Amino acid sequence: MEFNAVYHQASDNYCYPLNEDELIINIKTGYDVKSVSIILGDPFAAGILGGGEHWDGKKEPIIYKKRLKNQIWWTTTVRPEYKRLKYYFELQTGEESWFYFEDGFVSSEQMHLEGRSRQCFVFPWMNPCDVPRTPAWVNDTVWYQIFPDRFCNGDPSNDPENVVLWREHGSVTNEECFGGDLAGITDKLDYLQNLGINGLYLTPINEAPSNHKYDTTDYTKIDPRFGDEETFKHLVKEAHKRGIRVMLDGVFNHSGYYFAPWQDVLAKGPESEYYDWFMINEWPFDKNGQAAKKKQYYTFAFYDSMPKINTNNPKVRKYFVDICANWVENYGIDGIRLDVANEVSHRFCKELHARVKEINPDIYILGEIWHNALPWLRGDEFDAVMNYPLGQSIKDFWIDKSLTNEDFEYTINRCYTSYMQQTNDVLFNLLDSHDTKRLRSDVKNLDEYFAQIAVLFAMPGSPCIYYGTEIAMEGSYDPDCRRCMPWSDIEAGKYAERSRIISTLIHLRRQEPLLKSRNFHFPNDYAAYRRVIQFQKVDFPDCYVEVLINCCEEDVEVVPQGEILLERHYIDSTLLSNGILIRRIRK
Amino acid sequence: MEFNAVYHQASDNYCYPLNEDELIINIKTGYDVKSVSIILGDPFAAGILGGGEHWDGKKEPIIYKKRLKNQIWWTTTVRPEYKRLKYYFELQTGEESWFYFEDGFVSSEQMHLEGRSRQCFVFPWMNPCDVPRTPAWVNDTVWYQIFPDRFCNGDPSNDPENVVLWREHGSVTNEECFGGDLAGITDKLDYLQNLGINGLYLTPINEAPSNHKYDTTDYTKIDPRFGDEETFKHLVKEAHKRGIRVMLDGVFNHSGYYFAPWQDVLAKGPESEYYDWFMINEWPFDKNGQAAKKKQYYTFAFYDSMPKINTNNPKVRKYFVDICANWVENYGIDGIRLDVANEVSHRFCKELHARVKEINPDIYILGEIWHNALPWLRGDEFDAVMNYPLGQSIKDFWIDKSLTNEDFEYTINRCYTSYMQQTNDVLFNLLDSHDTKRLRSDVKNLDEYFAQIAVLFAMPGSPCIYYGTEIAMEGSYDPDCRRCMPWSDIEAGKYAERSRIISTLIHLRRQEPLLKSRNFHFPNDYAAYRRVIQFQKVDFPDCYVEVLINCCEEDVEVVPQGEILLERHYIDSTLLSNGILIRRIRK
Repeated sequence: MEFNAVYHQASDNYCYPLNEDELIINIKTGYDVKSVSIILGDPFAAGILGGGEHWDGKKEPIIYKKRLKNQIWWTTTVRPEYKRLKYYFELQTGEESWFYFEDGFVSSEQMHLEGRSRQCFVFPWMNPCDVPRTPAWVNDTVWYQIFPDRFCNGDPSNDPENVVLWREHGSVTNEECFGGDLAGITDKLDYLQNLGINGLYLTPINEAPSNHKYDTTDYTKIDPRFGDEETFKHLVKEAHKRGIRVMLDGVFNHSGYYFAPWQDVLAKGPESEYYDWFMINEWPFDKNGQAAKKKQYYTFAFYDSMPKINTNNPKVRKYFVDICANWVENYGIDGIRLDVANEVSHRFCKELHARVKEINPDIYILGEIWHNALPWLRGDEFDAVMNYPLGQSIKDFWIDKSLTNEDFEYTINRCYTSYMQQTNDVLFNLLDSHDTKRLRSDVKNLDEYFAQIAVLFAMPGSPCIYYGTEIAMEGSYDPDCRRCMPWSDIEAGKYAERSRIISTLIHLRRQEPLLKSRNFHFPNDYAAYRRVIQFQKVDFPDCYVEVLINCCEEDVEVVPQGEILLERHYIDSTLLSNGILIRRIRK
Repeated sequence: MEFNAVYHQASDNYCYPLNEDELIINIKTGYDVKSVSIILGDPFAAGILGGGEHWDGKKEPIIYKKRLKNQIWWTTTVRPEYKRLKYYFELQTGEESWFYFEDGFVSSEQMHLEGRSRQCFVFPWMNPCDVPRTPAWVNDTVWYQIFPDRFCNGDPSNDPENVVLWREHGSVTNEECFGGDLAGITDKLDYLQNLGINGLYLTPINEAPSNHKYDTTDYTKIDPRFGDEETFKHLVKEAHKRGIRVMLDGVFNHSGYYFAPWQDVLAKGPESEYYDWFMINEWPFDKNGQAAKKKQYYTFAFYDSMPKINTNNPKVRKYFVDICANWVENYGIDGIRLDVANEVSHRFCKELHARVKEINPDIYILGEIWHNALPWLRGDEFDAVMNYPLGQSIKDFWIDKSLTNEDFEYTINRCYTSYMQQTNDVLFNLLDSHDTKRLRSDVKNLDEYFAQIAVLFAMPGSPCIYYGTEIAMEGSYDPDCRRCMPWSDIEAGKYAERSRIISTLIHLRRQEPLLKSRNFHFPNDYAAYRRVIQFQKVDFPDCYVEVLINCCEEDVEVVPQGEILLERHYIDSTLLSNGILIRRIRK
């Protein structure tokens, strides 16, 4: 047997309570393993620990599996009668049979050696307060990310002094401000509602000198060029009226240069009462933009003007947790996205979670983490992270033509075996953002564009499109991905067909529970074609939804069946290159 | 390459800050991998995320390794200049070379595909408040576990009514009380100090009807049959005078039958204000001892008289955290051992940790967990757990004669690659306790007995011997492992030679820093013999300590070198069967 391919641990994504009654158990093996059983029972069925008891479990087959690149992911759900579970596994290849314990592999012969350890896996107790819970509404949400300065200018009276004329076409710079504001977003709520959107994610709106506002001056104040507290509360109220939730962006990793405590430090140095609000190693500071490089103080990346906030300091944690508590309580927002969430202390994240969930257990806490984020997703920090790995997996399939159907299956399964199911349900799925190239500029043509978005919308989690996605807006890396919305063209109907396709997808996603569901599998019916994405969303006994995307250059013949929910380039049972077919099939 | 043998994650025991400056990075591979390099650098060296930057790291070889059963554990320590690290690995077998990223393996060709994801591992920021810290004194401690009722009766005036005459020889039952008490322990502090002991772990001393006192009646009171608050404070004071630390046992998973809140529940049912202090599903309760089996309420194991305490309830958490805070503040104890620690809520463990570490950052929090305990050892719950897996690994080598030198190496390495180094330093290492057979009754003869204890004392962590170990006391499973100390025989010198050997080991452990150190390796010089334990403790540039145990039936010839620190059955460079040789060797 391929011993090294076998892995289980009684924690994290391998073993966790889905709710107060059900425990999910996953185990990885190599492809040589043909069947897996779990032998399980109550830890105290034969007496208490250490008493030389002879414990025997009940044997159950594990039947559900996902294919990973070189391994099989087996999964089962158990309901421990007394909330506690002791277990081990039996693995069978064709020829061999091994028992797998926490301390290794044991042969049938060794199983009978008196006194020899057989360290079972144990999930000791399913405490309700330790069950990771995520807000149910997030899975029903289709998000729309707005970069306020570039979305819509609703109130020219609050435009910045140096406002630049709204630029319907062409690039923008990092220095230009276009006057987009909260009133503009409120003005477009009907537009967004018609599009099908029911969640807004706004990049920061607190006072800051830049157009992006990731360099906060005052966390307690809405930027006057965007509006004020009343304008924002009005936006939230109007959004909620239309069934649209609102998420704000919390920039607590670093402050802007003009944040009062930082100005105080710059003025007074070690005498400042805010000196330990930042991470300072040396004083006085270099004035030529080399302070970060010289490690005089820590910053975001190497920007001297973005000093890192010291969330190791309990006072600082309290200050920023209070800021968020106010957002939730007073503004009535529904979600908080944490910028550079992976650099903030875990301690801060835990205190934030405890506090805002107490105010509103349904608040959504989303971390900006681009890499594997398991340490933040154990139930007491974030509900989810921005799912860049999923977006990249989808894009990779179009970039790297050497990847096959199976590679796609492996990479998607990797994304959805990394975290708990309750996390998967609310992962923030995206293909682009203000921090990346726009998808439109990353693909060759609109066919590829719609195909990738269709895949995104069929994935477990919560999809987000970046403003302008509905019109396939172009844009390279920051700042080019932050162009102005061309409202004249939109209103003139120039992008009507693009918008119609995206809107159809959004409505389909929202109406079809199977598109949102966490369970899917890859039947691999089109193995003869190297690059046909096929997966089925399953959750109901009587029907499933099938998604087919033809990424080959040749046509693919499809067995006609079921009810078509969405089609592109599909003609008489033939799915053309870059064609999309989504259909509901009765079993 | 054996892809499935390769594993790394940027968290837990694979990647963690050892302190504020050093990051430990471990990676597992198969034995086919001959060299491993890490390519590492600052995440922002080439700009910010998502900007299409071309990041390049610096390549460094990883040279330290440990052998596991089927895998190699490679380890390195890095000092990220700006507290943050981005990295991936290069793996080379003889024939192949692969790059290993968070999302999988990439060939040299694929490394050059533009736009294709290469998801590096990231340790985003080494926040000081998230660095797991354990108390330094614990590694310098040799513990002595006392079961007070059976250790020494220092004050006959507080004997229980039904006291049984002290039984110097032979078995005991679970119903008998022998009158051992805190005064008796104080009386024997000089004896323990002479033995070399500098840490006491007492099984519970709060008021409880049983002799073991794991069925607490009153958590605020010392059991009057053991003494009172003054007697205990006196014991702590006298122990501290002699450089001996004291650890108490906290039984917060379940209460005893006579715990006032439980009595209130039994009397008033759902009307009791303590109803949600327990985990109750149904009322009224079965009176025939079947309530636990019927799940009417949850209990420890299936004992109706030991109802589980509901540490999901914030009020309950506060009550028991307050109890512990008082122990630390008022009694001045040095450690808290948590009974059935794995069933108590994580939430409770975290609140307990935060509170008692605030009172005394050096307090030692030890959890009774028999299985892998990583989820409790992430820095904000326990400092360590009772290291039953290590004890079992040592005992297994004598029980299962099919195990070879290499199997021993693998199993020990497994134990010390499961947790962080700062955890390994303070793991509570033991071969027996009040919950197991005594070691003496688990081995064939005294030679095996001393050999196993010698191995235990050379391991990283903090060794503990159970009272009576110094005289090789016998005892099968509970209650037989809880016999009375035969003081008359001890004082008559009947066990002088046994005690001398154990005392020599204790003093050697305390005086020789290398025996305590966390770093060791298995040179495997005696591969020709199947069953010779050989390992070297290393930490200094100029010398190391070597431990040799001959577990063969034949003699083993040893190259004479270094200074002998301890020897048994060692004659003129010949190590006899079950012989022990511990020596310090200059390089």
